[in-house]
Amino acid sequence: MSVFCFANNKIQPIELAGVPVTDLLVQRGYGIFDFLRVAKDKPLFVDAHLDRFFHSASVMRLNIPQTREEIKSIVKALIQKNNMAYSGIRMLIAGGDAPDGYTIETPHLIIIQAPLAEPTLVLPETGIKLATYNYQRQIPEVKTTDYLMAIWLQPWMKQQGADDILYHHNGLVSECPRSNFFLVTKDNILVTAKQNMLKGVTRKNIMQVCTENNIPFEERDVHVSEFSTAKEAFITSSTKRIIPVHQVDEIVLKPNYQDSFAKKIYDLLVALED
Amino acid sequence: MSVFCFANNKIQPIELAGVPVTDLLVQRGYGIFDFLRVAKDKPLFVDAHLDRFFHSASVMRLNIPQTREEIKSIVKALIQKNNMAYSGIRMLIAGGDAPDGYTIETPHLIIIQAPLAEPTLVLPETGIKLATYNYQRQIPEVKTTDYLMAIWLQPWMKQQGADDILYHHNGLVSECPRSNFFLVTKDNILVTAKQNMLKGVTRKNIMQVCTENNIPFEERDVHVSEFSTAKEAFITSSTKRIIPVHQVDEIVLKPNYQDSFAKKIYDLLVALED
Repeated sequence: MSVFCFANNKIQPIELAGVPVTDLLVQRGYGIFDFLRVAKDKPLFVDAHLDRFFHSASVMRLNIPQTREEIKSIVKALIQKNNMAYSGIRMLIAGGDAPDGYTIETPHLIIIQAPLAEPTLVLPETGIKLATYNYQRQIPEVKTTDYLMAIWLQPWMKQQGADDILYHHNGLVSECPRSNFFLVTKDNILVTAKQNMLKGVTRKNIMQVCTENNIPFEERDVHVSEFSTAKEAFITSSTKRIIPVHQVDEIVLKPNYQDSFAKKIYDLLVALED
Repeated sequence: MSVFCFANNKIQPIELAGVPVTDLLVQRGYGIFDFLRVAKDKPLFVDAHLDRFFHSASVMRLNIPQTREEIKSIVKALIQKNNMAYSGIRMLIAGGDAPDGYTIETPHLIIIQAPLAEPTLVLPETGIKLATYNYQRQIPEVKTTDYLMAIWLQPWMKQQGADDILYHHNGLVSECPRSNFFLVTKDNILVTAKQNMLKGVTRKNIMQVCTENNIPFEERDVHVSEFSTAKEAFITSSTKRIIPVHQVDEIVLKPNYQDSFAKKIYDLLVALED
């Protein structure tokens, strides 16, 4: 049975959907996207994702042909048609055909749905190792389709024995390729980068639950030198909510799992999805 | 009448050719390409372009499914089928379908042909204005499909009254988005950047004709402070050979057209195409 997607202005089997070879996305890598999780047929935090999607498009001067309500309707129709209660939805704006290969004229919307396992109800105890890499994403506040460096670095990452990459630029921590990064300082304050990265929807939700629950929290510059004194660290994404970080480069972090910020916040995030 | 391209392992009408929406090129901007000019049915400097194309693919760990000879045959077949004696050929490697959206498995080749006007037989007298911008392309020695910054900067460039952008990084000049940059110093030496940029085939040809004709030439770091004392400047590409530069930001360059390095080298490049 085919999986259906939205492309070329219609819902169609994904294997029939293609981006024209003359499209700016194909020829010049010019596109933006957003990704959200669907649980029990419900697209989670869809308004926050659409806010960011429209913001990304606006910064890149890509006019989205559909309204927010039209996009919501397409997402709903796809979830029903594919009968995929737990999944990920990728909304993408391609630059569109440019007769001169360079000028934005008619961007177009693509929406893809794929199965996605539901994260566990409690925070996993197993953590991951991050390897730091000096790199600054271009136009970092926008969720562009540019993952050139992330994919190129995969063999290097594996050589380090790491599970993911943590970008920093001259010592200032920004983000992982598909996640935001948080650490708990020696003074028990949760901190995360404030600029030069993509602001995740889970990151936004964490700021909300921290405020509501009086969890000490700061958005500020985070320096790589803070790893050695950090009490814990974790990464966040729409797909996984939170994944604990047990090692950054050679620095091993051994938080108290039961009393961790990560566990407490994870439970609050689960509750937020209802 | 349709224009034909090569995609999905066959020659087909371009309007039927699409890149799957699940391809790494579409979802993660992971691809490389090369572009060459065709004159009188002959693909110019095809071996130099294929050298670079295979090098780009190798650095990005994209296995090109076809051999060099197979690619040459496809290019020849397209030129005949499209009956397009003066044109541009774009060879592109898309990352291919990645079931996890991240792992390179089966890259594929796309070749597109489009009409392209033949450059004039002598160097045009009219020059262009460049606007400098502090930016370093990622993986700069590879001709990736990443032109995010170049396209994003178009309105800014027009606000500067400029015709093209010249990238520098902390004062060291690298390249224009689609061209190499050269200047002639006050001591009558032709100089161009040595690193952190894409090495063009026309740039390579210029180095060859300079050597053969005893034109003083240096590959070295070029600093933006050298514009103010430069005798001339120009950009080079497979499409246009050489375009004189008459202004960089606020600095006006007024070379003696008849005695210019650009004019002399242009004539040598024209001869090289025979």
